[in-house]
Amino acid sequence: MLNLAKITSPTLLLNEQKCWANLKKLAQQAAKHNVQLAPHFKTHQSAQVSQWYRDYGVKAITVTSVKMARYFAEHGWDDITIAMPINIREIKAINTLASQIRLTVFVNSVETARLLHEQVTAPLPFYVEVDTGYHRSGVASDDTEEIRAILAAAQGSQLQFTGFYSHAGHTYGATTYQEVKRIHQETLQQLNQLKEIFQSEYPNVQLSLGDTPSCSLMDDFSGIDIIRPGNFVYYDLTQHFVGSNSVEEIAICLAVPVVSVHPERKEVVTHSGWAHLGKDSLTNEAGKSWYGYVVNLTESGWSEPLEGAYVAKLSQEHGTLHLPDNYLEKVKVGDLLGILPVHACATVVMMGKLTTLSEEVLSTMI
Amino acid sequence: MLNLAKITSPTLLLNEQKCWANLKKLAQQAAKHNVQLAPHFKTHQSAQVSQWYRDYGVKAITVTSVKMARYFAEHGWDDITIAMPINIREIKAINTLASQIRLTVFVNSVETARLLHEQVTAPLPFYVEVDTGYHRSGVASDDTEEIRAILAAAQGSQLQFTGFYSHAGHTYGATTYQEVKRIHQETLQQLNQLKEIFQSEYPNVQLSLGDTPSCSLMDDFSGIDIIRPGNFVYYDLTQHFVGSNSVEEIAICLAVPVVSVHPERKEVVTHSGWAHLGKDSLTNEAGKSWYGYVVNLTESGWSEPLEGAYVAKLSQEHGTLHLPDNYLEKVKVGDLLGILPVHACATVVMMGKLTTLSEEVLSTMI
Repeated sequence: MLNLAKITSPTLLLNEQKCWANLKKLAQQAAKHNVQLAPHFKTHQSAQVSQWYRDYGVKAITVTSVKMARYFAEHGWDDITIAMPINIREIKAINTLASQIRLTVFVNSVETARLLHEQVTAPLPFYVEVDTGYHRSGVASDDTEEIRAILAAAQGSQLQFTGFYSHAGHTYGATTYQEVKRIHQETLQQLNQLKEIFQSEYPNVQLSLGDTPSCSLMDDFSGIDIIRPGNFVYYDLTQHFVGSNSVEEIAICLAVPVVSVHPERKEVVTHSGWAHLGKDSLTNEAGKSWYGYVVNLTESGWSEPLEGAYVAKLSQEHGTLHLPDNYLEKVKVGDLLGILPVHACATVVMMGKLTTLSEEVLSTMI
Repeated sequence: MLNLAKITSPTLLLNEQKCWANLKKLAQQAAKHNVQLAPHFKTHQSAQVSQWYRDYGVKAITVTSVKMARYFAEHGWDDITIAMPINIREIKAINTLASQIRLTVFVNSVETARLLHEQVTAPLPFYVEVDTGYHRSGVASDDTEEIRAILAAAQGSQLQFTGFYSHAGHTYGATTYQEVKRIHQETLQQLNQLKEIFQSEYPNVQLSLGDTPSCSLMDDFSGIDIIRPGNFVYYDLTQHFVGSNSVEEIAICLAVPVVSVHPERKEVVTHSGWAHLGKDSLTNEAGKSWYGYVVNLTESGWSEPLEGAYVAKLSQEHGTLHLPDNYLEKVKVGDLLGILPVHACATVVMMGKLTTLSEEVLSTMI
């Protein structure tokens, strides 16, 4: 039970029941489709939260940086993939870590393969990241010449080719199930084509993908070996509007003190700026940005979103909430409200720690 | 001298010479106009940086939260104003701090004045924040009835009326000197009108304002006693485009490793996401968002912005930089580039510490 009277400043709440249900849902999704779940830990960045995944059979994990890999290695994880083009300037730390755990990296260019060939001193499995349409990083999925050149440059070193990875991040901009499905099918097709081409030479070639919308929503994972979604652990409003989750499944909520009430413009100011919530926004029908739903807090968690209420503006520490008259009448200076975040990963990065509904404080590496 | 070879991951650099020049410029501006400089410390949030201000005669400071006030109080500052509607839920911490230093708060409503009247146990000076057009918080500057009610509710308690404060935050959206000037003049006029009304009853009533554009650019501070700008310590591209500073005056730069080069779309990917840079953007002529200028790094700092280069996209840890062909030809995986931030306050919040050009690492409260 949460003692709301003890909350005096912006506090990130975690409903652990909702979180466990989200973990269970994805673990069941992975089991159903016979793929391994190697979840991305960049969303929570918490050693304590990471232990909860073990109950759902998770053994291998995904991170975004050498620093994050080291943090989770120090907390007992020994099979970690860094899902970002590897940063060769960190080769010393990479070598150290690769000698301690199974560390897998992304090698996306001949140049990187050559540099690693010269400098790597411990066995280093790697994926070639392929670009299946998101156009952020990775080799174009039809550029088999470049892929062959990367594999050739890696030969004779401690580098071990594992397979192909794609992050179809363009699903985050999708607004319908059909759109997610189309992107997912295109990704599947391109990855499987590569498997077909390289399987004779590399019989153990694995396919992996990582976006939360596809992993939450899709029913076809043909040919895929490992999925690496991250956001599903908490979910958020961005994922809700893509269709990945219901609002009820969102597992975190920012508790914020009301510092000022402005009925004349239907606003209250809370201590909750971008320094607490992050700056991610969604756009309403009138084309205006908004930054979160508003909920009431109770000792057992939080309510459904207050109809018509939303976070309208953010400064560094001021949050301006729009409230309809029926809510505005009841709210006063010193009250506590809750905000459901647009982007859970960002809110976690800003807040750094979480308080569960049973009042345990969970730390993160931030 | 900076040893670039030692920089292996995203690192926030601080050119201390530029920083000192910025401090000097604002101190001279304050002296010229005979106003006290009580700078806002939310931009740097660093005990070490805070000591530099002492060389420029700074004795009183401004912060955004009780937590930040406590941090700077612990580092030797004894005259601190919290420039945000006071959060009554933190009354215990406020009372403790107010018994140790001169702590000044904002009381913007009768409700807050009544709650403080009941609960405050140490002398607590306060401003009434007035809204001169930004419409974030504060009493409407022409609502003298509300102001009188606040002052009446404060009577007979430890609350001490100090004066009126206005943050004309709408100058941050200004694009011309004339626009900043118009907003500033309106603010001056409204504040001075209040002084006139309340001076007979409160002969020591002070006027204070705080936005960096006005404080950097304006030449008329008639009637103003204290200015509280913050961003000027580092400046940034937002302030540059408002006109507050030249690009050369920007004192911080994010050093970022190149992890991937994509000549086919004139892009490089660097390890520099919103988790490092913050998510603030500016909009180019085509209506597209961008997130920073790109510079070359040297052992003595950084170059002018590379012409035509900019940060085009940000994920959590990936930064996508657009580079024209002439720069793209030279850049390779493992190189280091620099990014000048759109919003210095945000980049500091994300990075948490800074490395000076003489390789001293400065911590912050983050």
